[in-house]
Amino acid sequence: MSKGINISNSVIRRLPRYYRFLGELEKQNISKISSRELSERMRLTASQIRQDLNCFGGFGQQGYGYNVSELRTAIGHILGVDKHRKTILIGAGNLGTALAVHINFEKSGCKLIGIFDSNKSIIGSPLGEHTILDIDNLEAFCKAEKPEIAVLCIPTSAAKAIVDRLTKLGIHSFWNFSHFDICTEHSDITVENVHLGDSLLTLSYGVNNRNTSEKK
Amino acid sequence: MSKGINISNSVIRRLPRYYRFLGELEKQNISKISSRELSERMRLTASQIRQDLNCFGGFGQQGYGYNVSELRTAIGHILGVDKHRKTILIGAGNLGTALAVHINFEKSGCKLIGIFDSNKSIIGSPLGEHTILDIDNLEAFCKAEKPEIAVLCIPTSAAKAIVDRLTKLGIHSFWNFSHFDICTEHSDITVENVHLGDSLLTLSYGVNNRNTSEKK
Repeated sequence: MSKGINISNSVIRRLPRYYRFLGELEKQNISKISSRELSERMRLTASQIRQDLNCFGGFGQQGYGYNVSELRTAIGHILGVDKHRKTILIGAGNLGTALAVHINFEKSGCKLIGIFDSNKSIIGSPLGEHTILDIDNLEAFCKAEKPEIAVLCIPTSAAKAIVDRLTKLGIHSFWNFSHFDICTEHSDITVENVHLGDSLLTLSYGVNNRNTSEKK
Repeated sequence: MSKGINISNSVIRRLPRYYRFLGELEKQNISKISSRELSERMRLTASQIRQDLNCFGGFGQQGYGYNVSELRTAIGHILGVDKHRKTILIGAGNLGTALAVHINFEKSGCKLIGIFDSNKSIIGSPLGEHTILDIDNLEAFCKAEKPEIAVLCIPTSAAKAIVDRLTKLGIHSFWNFSHFDICTEHSDITVENVHLGDSLLTLSYGVNNRNTSEKK
């Protein structure tokens, strides 16, 4: 489907949004949409949308627009939502629990197969459909189950040792909520870092700029 | 400090990262850094960094580089980290609890002054330095304390009613973890949406593309 592998990061980052918006349209039983309508809903220009989708071969039909369900399925395929890659979550504190409970891993191409923690007082407790496992059993579990992705909800101080263990066990893809910079220590890995503090600072900038503009 | 108000969104989104990296350099007692060194650490080009910082008037000195502490203070000022804007958090479930406990609001220009929930079984319980307040007291609290920012950790289904209440109470800035699209219902607001599902899908794309490349 992809025309090439040099697709810009900003296009890739918009794909999940397209996928989400198209899912909302499907729920509203909207079966086709023009690029203009889609652009208004997504607050992008119609030309931007056409350019983005052209990176993957283009999907629209002149004078018809997009078939919502077909486009969503195609984008989902590009995103790998149908892959159900085995995923483990490390750290069952508040954030790990929030992710385990609220994130629909299956809809995002992942299958959560194990949750680990080092805190003896919660090991063995239920969490969603899982039971919290002892981090000491990480090696045995990974050798048997061969997960591909790890979600890191651990303090930065604990992250280096865990990442070292996980890469030795063949895990090269991380959804990283710690502030540990995995890329400087390991090459040949795929990381999606989530820095919630950066997001709050971006809001702070927006509020600051908003207030400055109002005062002008 | 700003040369104008038309600074691109991608530059703004990089500012918190500069701020974070410069903070790490300060911790390591590094007092000056060249744009080349900074670019290597941040995995941006030196030219990109110069362009970004030039949007705010430029800070470097030819042949000297950047004074880490001065640059961090200046970027912090642009981001509004010294503002301590009054912030309330709505929804003390797992995600709300994780944010209340782990996010350093003070370092991000915000001051968390109240946490609200509608669940009677947790109202009155401690959460960090706070006590969970009854959402029924939202109006009285906001009229007395005049918070500027609300963090929404509530289900999408509950979001519209809460946002309506908050905007009437003078809150126009939101850190939004729900999937409710605030902008379509309200204008003149500042929103930072956090879609964790989109982030996981971006990782899924990366894993997918990585595996496709490996097979080639």
